[in-house]
Amino acid sequence: MNPTDFSTYSSYYKRVIDHALPTYITGLTSPSIIKDAMIYSLSAGGKRIRPLLLFATLRAFGKEEEIGLPIACAVEMIHTYSLIHDDLPSMDNDDLRRGKPTNHKVYGEAIAILAGDGLLTHSFHLISNMSHPLVTSEMKLALISLLSKSAGPEGMVGGQVADMEGENKNLPLHELEYIHIHKTGKLLAFCILAGGILSSAEEHQLAKLEEFALHVGLAFQIQDDILDIEGNEEMLGKPVGSDVHNQKTTYPSLLTMQGAKEKLQYHIDEAVRSLHDVGVNHDYLEEICNMIASRNH
Amino acid sequence: MNPTDFSTYSSYYKRVIDHALPTYITGLTSPSIIKDAMIYSLSAGGKRIRPLLLFATLRAFGKEEEIGLPIACAVEMIHTYSLIHDDLPSMDNDDLRRGKPTNHKVYGEAIAILAGDGLLTHSFHLISNMSHPLVTSEMKLALISLLSKSAGPEGMVGGQVADMEGENKNLPLHELEYIHIHKTGKLLAFCILAGGILSSAEEHQLAKLEEFALHVGLAFQIQDDILDIEGNEEMLGKPVGSDVHNQKTTYPSLLTMQGAKEKLQYHIDEAVRSLHDVGVNHDYLEEICNMIASRNH
Repeated sequence: MNPTDFSTYSSYYKRVIDHALPTYITGLTSPSIIKDAMIYSLSAGGKRIRPLLLFATLRAFGKEEEIGLPIACAVEMIHTYSLIHDDLPSMDNDDLRRGKPTNHKVYGEAIAILAGDGLLTHSFHLISNMSHPLVTSEMKLALISLLSKSAGPEGMVGGQVADMEGENKNLPLHELEYIHIHKTGKLLAFCILAGGILSSAEEHQLAKLEEFALHVGLAFQIQDDILDIEGNEEMLGKPVGSDVHNQKTTYPSLLTMQGAKEKLQYHIDEAVRSLHDVGVNHDYLEEICNMIASRNH
Repeated sequence: MNPTDFSTYSSYYKRVIDHALPTYITGLTSPSIIKDAMIYSLSAGGKRIRPLLLFATLRAFGKEEEIGLPIACAVEMIHTYSLIHDDLPSMDNDDLRRGKPTNHKVYGEAIAILAGDGLLTHSFHLISNMSHPLVTSEMKLALISLLSKSAGPEGMVGGQVADMEGENKNLPLHELEYIHIHKTGKLLAFCILAGGILSSAEEHQLAKLEEFALHVGLAFQIQDDILDIEGNEEMLGKPVGSDVHNQKTTYPSLLTMQGAKEKLQYHIDEAVRSLHDVGVNHDYLEEICNMIASRNH
């Protein structure tokens, strides 16, 4: 498809992902309760920003978005598993996620843990079984290697641990950045780099994409912190003020609200600068930057 | 190495695994608490039966055991993650594992969940980064595809769910077998099939190896059930009688102890028969069958 504007493009691919995700689960030979639990959280909505980053990167290199569909779904499975586990009573103990009861509130803790485990494991099945003729074995292995690093102890899991260890402490900026780069940034960066890998990007282009991803990821998190203070509960689907309540170090708490907004703009500007250096058709990737900076949920 | 007997062989490769496992974690750039938690459970001992099955299969095809070392470690990481999550308060709520405090008793529930997540994710990193010149990209992808299926919703995770759903119920034999084939059998089978894949085994040989693995897995579980009644607590490192206490359906409860022992012998005999049909040097794989049937821990 060739939508005429970014808004149509992003809502089209959100629907593509919403539709595709459960199809990877429904046909599995598994007890129905675990399939229900996995699909419940996969289908709980969400912005699908990670798939959108992947698709827009493929588009930037002139590739078909559909090549990346299994990767996009694998990343959403990993993102979803991380939310299920983060919401558990022993972690953030959240009852609501996007305005709906969290997985363990519906299915119980044991099934929620296993639904997360199942989604994480199955994501690697999707990638190893990609069958598009343009996707080589070497590409699949590079993607699995990068995804397991980005989501694992050196990536998202490490960031979650650092986040927990930083609770009720006044963290300096570099520790706050470590947390965000790992907890959310690495998986966002994977999506962008995956688009580059599938497009056979040059090394110098991958390096610039990684810079772009770093700044996008931090911008995303700063806006998250800002929304937790200035956001609208109904739009967000969760209560605001939880960071203050939980005594978390945030960009506004470290830098003041004005300082946080300047930092947000700095990372958006740097992201756009890195993006231009990649030397591809960057129109929609730049739109995503602007969307992140101005999002209200 | 070329040890002169199976006992030397199995204890040599247990040491190889015990030594290799932490080396995949210590060098990671991660918060030290999560590395400690992962290494704690990886180093908690265990029989290393899964690596041994893999190595003995490679040997059966005349291959070097060392080719499979990253796979063996990946499987132990997955096995270990499953034990950490199974022991959690919302699952089996076990305080002891192999005579030592369980992961969440030492590190708390949140870190235990994340240590499991980290081990599961990192296992795929090991396989995608195998560098032995005899291991092709196609082999690595076949291994990742099979492992993610064997450990995921259609394998181990599905079996764990079925096991939980079967608690406090009188299950018929076919449901008990479903649980064991998935909860423990699929990962044991992966090890054997991985040896076949790395040895470029023929399709008919892989089919026979799968039959062999199915029977080995069931024999393993029946002996587990028997040991829970007739075993020695000190040898097992855990209390006996827990199945009766938890009102679990077991082979002895369904078939009587005599019937369970006959069933064990049946599966050992069938395993050996299938093994002979593979047409390889089966000496040590047959020894493992006998070890499983007569093990006391």
